[in-house]
Amino acid sequence: MKTSIGAKNIIFPTPVFIVGTYGEEGKPNAMNVAWAGICGSSPPSIGIAIREQRCTYKNIMNRKAFTINIPSEIYIKEADYFDLVSGNKTDKFSDTGLTPIQSDKVDASYIEEFPFNAECELIETLQIGEHTLFVGQIIDIKVDADCIDKNDLPDIEKIKPLLFDPAAIRYNTVGKIAGKAFSIGKRILSHDN
Amino acid sequence: MKTSIGAKNIIFPTPVFIVGTYGEEGKPNAMNVAWAGICGSSPPSIGIAIREQRCTYKNIMNRKAFTINIPSEIYIKEADYFDLVSGNKTDKFSDTGLTPIQSDKVDASYIEEFPFNAECELIETLQIGEHTLFVGQIIDIKVDADCIDKNDLPDIEKIKPLLFDPAAIRYNTVGKIAGKAFSIGKRILSHDN
Repeated sequence: MKTSIGAKNIIFPTPVFIVGTYGEEGKPNAMNVAWAGICGSSPPSIGIAIREQRCTYKNIMNRKAFTINIPSEIYIKEADYFDLVSGNKTDKFSDTGLTPIQSDKVDASYIEEFPFNAECELIETLQIGEHTLFVGQIIDIKVDADCIDKNDLPDIEKIKPLLFDPAAIRYNTVGKIAGKAFSIGKRILSHDN
Repeated sequence: MKTSIGAKNIIFPTPVFIVGTYGEEGKPNAMNVAWAGICGSSPPSIGIAIREQRCTYKNIMNRKAFTINIPSEIYIKEADYFDLVSGNKTDKFSDTGLTPIQSDKVDASYIEEFPFNAECELIETLQIGEHTLFVGQIIDIKVDADCIDKNDLPDIEKIKPLLFDPAAIRYNTVGKIAGKAFSIGKRILSHDN
């Protein structure tokens, strides 16, 4: 039996991305964004949706760049804090003790303590109601050396990203490995269930 | 120490959404999409990125509608299968035994056995390299009655969605609850760590 719950902003999973930018006079800012995802492969691109009143909106418009920083589980308080306060009123970096680093590829800062940092250059914008979708081309990804797997790729089990649950307004961790993609579905063909 | 891994389509978490559409003569189709996310609140909107050669691309262009269906963990084989084969060559529904249902709000079919179904009407498209980002306004969400929480919202712990890991090409489950959003970060202000 299906229950209709109407038109709501709910989908699972939703990410916890901290967006790094520079404000006026080069002041680093960071904002927690959940309306986001990869939106193209060639060039590799990430879309993030931000309202006009946020500092990050103006910063991206001015600098044409941003970083996506993935907090590990242990930084759940810091990740949430970035959503509780405005960069207009406080210095989120001195409050949290986290370190903004100048990206070497784009005009934005990334967060040193977070294990995954994607440096993005703005290539498109799209207005969707109150939100502007900023599409950034991924120019480089930096990963903590101890979070790299044997194929030199970021290891989700070491990075330990968070999920945002927009229904319960909570965070979840990532669970166990469930199966190999482009592979486990072959059992449907072979009727090997 | 940070390691630079270059420009790659990797971010965590990435979703496992099965997109439901109608093809020619009303043939239901379904496709596994990972480049996707919420991209607006008002109206509530989901963006999904699809290449032009896919059946789903043509179906959305023709019908201006799609559904987002979230498979539970137990449907990992079926979810992966939707990515292994083309709707041009086979009937994915008869192969998997899953049931396409005509949405009552939009011109697309949803998957009965998957516990979460969002009915979306196309409102925007944006070309990003080889992919077209289809932005759908969420018109209604249907949820299995036994996956609703006490606030009449979908319960992530009952829905048990999957994540796609674009680095290891694997699926993960959702892990445990890690904290309350817009709340746990207050401990930074009170220095209660």
